[in-house]
Amino acid sequence: MLPVLDGVVMELQDCALPLLREVIPTDKEEVAFKDLDAAILVGSMPRREGMERKDLLKANVAIFKSQGAALEKYAKKTVKVLVVGNPANTNCLIAAKSAPSIPKENFSCLTRLDHNRARSQVAMRCGVPATQVKNVIIWGNHSSTQYPDVHHCKVNMAGSDLACFDAVKDDDWLKGAFISTVQQRGAAVIAARKLSSAMSAAKAICDHMRDIWSGTPEGEFVSMGVYSSSNSYSVAEDLIYSFPVHIKDKQWKIVDGLAINDFSRGKMDATAAELVEERDTAVTFLSA
Amino acid sequence: MLPVLDGVVMELQDCALPLLREVIPTDKEEVAFKDLDAAILVGSMPRREGMERKDLLKANVAIFKSQGAALEKYAKKTVKVLVVGNPANTNCLIAAKSAPSIPKENFSCLTRLDHNRARSQVAMRCGVPATQVKNVIIWGNHSSTQYPDVHHCKVNMAGSDLACFDAVKDDDWLKGAFISTVQQRGAAVIAARKLSSAMSAAKAICDHMRDIWSGTPEGEFVSMGVYSSSNSYSVAEDLIYSFPVHIKDKQWKIVDGLAINDFSRGKMDATAAELVEERDTAVTFLSA
Repeated sequence: MLPVLDGVVMELQDCALPLLREVIPTDKEEVAFKDLDAAILVGSMPRREGMERKDLLKANVAIFKSQGAALEKYAKKTVKVLVVGNPANTNCLIAAKSAPSIPKENFSCLTRLDHNRARSQVAMRCGVPATQVKNVIIWGNHSSTQYPDVHHCKVNMAGSDLACFDAVKDDDWLKGAFISTVQQRGAAVIAARKLSSAMSAAKAICDHMRDIWSGTPEGEFVSMGVYSSSNSYSVAEDLIYSFPVHIKDKQWKIVDGLAINDFSRGKMDATAAELVEERDTAVTFLSA
Repeated sequence: MLPVLDGVVMELQDCALPLLREVIPTDKEEVAFKDLDAAILVGSMPRREGMERKDLLKANVAIFKSQGAALEKYAKKTVKVLVVGNPANTNCLIAAKSAPSIPKENFSCLTRLDHNRARSQVAMRCGVPATQVKNVIIWGNHSSTQYPDVHHCKVNMAGSDLACFDAVKDDDWLKGAFISTVQQRGAAVIAARKLSSAMSAAKAICDHMRDIWSGTPEGEFVSMGVYSSSNSYSVAEDLIYSFPVHIKDKQWKIVDGLAINDFSRGKMDATAAELVEERDTAVTFLSA
């Protein structure tokens, strides 16, 4: 893949970007991870036909154990690590566990694409731009068990912020097709394009990293998979679980005190259960 | 291709872009071209192995005659048309000729990617970001006969603007490998990636359209293929030829009065000769 990587370098150079200083293409961990401030881990083993979940986890544990160890050895201790490669939450957890001297808070996984999808679905339904929809939440795993939650979402219509349910005026859709559309969107894009999401995933990565660096606006929150360590929202500890977060001074903080009804509780627990199972399988390969 | 196009629409929606209002995917000219303010014509017939230049031109004349006629019939008369599909200059000329009620000045073809490549090559050589290199020029055809000219280019180093030749301090490179690198860059990207330039072409399209809408900074110019009608720089008339232009109030104006030495003159004439030949072949198919 190195010659192809050279082509990507040429593409970057040819963009004549104002902030790009240098590109170092390499397949050597000691070069790639040296003194990093930010790492975006996009490569993973995709699920192939006939592959069992266990085999998929085993292959990815090998990759993210190695990348975690390389971060531990070469990166700055302040490095911010974003895991994109699927299964992103569990891969992120494995990377974090394999880099014990880097704070677990420095690791996150991408659920911003799901977050943006949820925003845009609501926006189209209301006939407003996506930026007039705020505070959607993606809870849990970046998988089809994720729970896109609009109970705290506001839609700006005609100058005022409405509760999402009041703006959309279709509870059945919000509790049904909206949720499954966001959960299944990745598969729908692949079915149409015959290729995975590319531009929208890149946009979500930029949004995620920009917010880590520059913070979230007052009164707004975004979704990201972060380390669950304090039983927030009764989510099991030692998972990478997607929560609503505020970010300030490059530190995220889970938005607390949001009311959770029974409908939401059940879905938040179901995606947590999937993550516990993934973790418990993955860690057996970690110690192997 | 319509199902694939639906996938692209999903990607755009999932970006949750602040300025995107609506996307209308269609294969119907009367829908696609209706009341357009801006048109970016990216589709063309690529050259296939064993295809002669004449056959390539014939296939593309059919496409751009039809798209020009659709612009004539459905678009606003103020529409700004950017042709990207190759051979871009001649395709652009055919589209303009096929839309007689739209001013020829509203048509341009993309040489901004070549312009950005030239900027970035000089910038890397000088160890500065691409944005510190200004006023490179791409003359002529968006093909391997194009002439990337740095005789009027300035490089900002350590706070002062240096002439490019003084900044680079390697005349042989600037008059040799630099030129051929820019001319052959598209082929080099394909050789490495096994795919055409994508991101860098998209970036160049955005740069081009933004400059048409918002203008160029004072004292800077950019390259674009525009209609040659006034014998500027002794270039034959009735060609789409890439010139250095200033843009203000959505109108481009060729930067005049730049000194042209014999070295440049020869290369500017060679690429013009290629365009004359392309045009003369293409128009025979136009009247057919």
